[in-house]
Amino acid sequence: MRVPSYGALSKIGDRWSMLVLRDISLGLSRFDQMRENLGIAPTMLTQRLQALTKAGVLEKRRYSEKPPRDEYILTQAGKDFLPVLYAFAAWGRHHGGGEGESTRLIDLETGDTVEPSVVDSATGKSLMDRTLRFTLP
Amino acid sequence: MRVPSYGALSKIGDRWSMLVLRDISLGLSRFDQMRENLGIAPTMLTQRLQALTKAGVLEKRRYSEKPPRDEYILTQAGKDFLPVLYAFAAWGRHHGGGEGESTRLIDLETGDTVEPSVVDSATGKSLMDRTLRFTLP
Repeated sequence: MRVPSYGALSKIGDRWSMLVLRDISLGLSRFDQMRENLGIAPTMLTQRLQALTKAGVLEKRRYSEKPPRDEYILTQAGKDFLPVLYAFAAWGRHHGGGEGESTRLIDLETGDTVEPSVVDSATGKSLMDRTLRFTLP
Repeated sequence: MRVPSYGALSKIGDRWSMLVLRDISLGLSRFDQMRENLGIAPTMLTQRLQALTKAGVLEKRRYSEKPPRDEYILTQAGKDFLPVLYAFAAWGRHHGGGEGESTRLIDLETGDTVEPSVVDSATGKSLMDRTLRFTLP
């Protein structure tokens, strides 16, 4: 019954990793920007950035030679993860209680309010109340 | 720039919590079933079940008085999280590499293969390649 596909969880299924991806999606791509925004310990941030890079979700890019400074950009796998992160955050908005409920998720380009929903891509129907399982063909 | 809605991540944004929710969705609702299926240390499992119950995602239900035994069921908030978990797992299937790629996500009732996609519920359009941000109204 062990399901290999959930291996994804061991790569990026922790709070800090997801917050790092969120920050990078919003343009906070440099170490100091993330450290400051997240209030995360430097060693912890270094560890997460290394793990996410090794997992193929981030890529390191040098933006200054003197002094040597790197920034992090999302790979295609990292970009593909963002919708999942939005769905996760929307769930939190509905069920987390407190101030989160008054926030809105907006599209930074159009300004539109967006309400994420997870659907079956073939039918467009919500996956709510369906029980799915990974299985070998 | 701190975003309250991502508080959800501190509640269930870790690998074990998500695996516990997956197991319960598949009917493995008892402590020993989960411990065995996940290969998780008993103290860790106890901790996660308590945290998920406190977060309002699980509910404890006694199914035997002698000996006293509890099982865990998903609350509505817990059920609402499952589509996010499926989207997460689907991402892992595409990007995790290895054996995960050969698995399929199927609907246990209909037997249909399902490919989760995160869309804007108003338009049905994919959230891929859109940059979203939580904001106060």
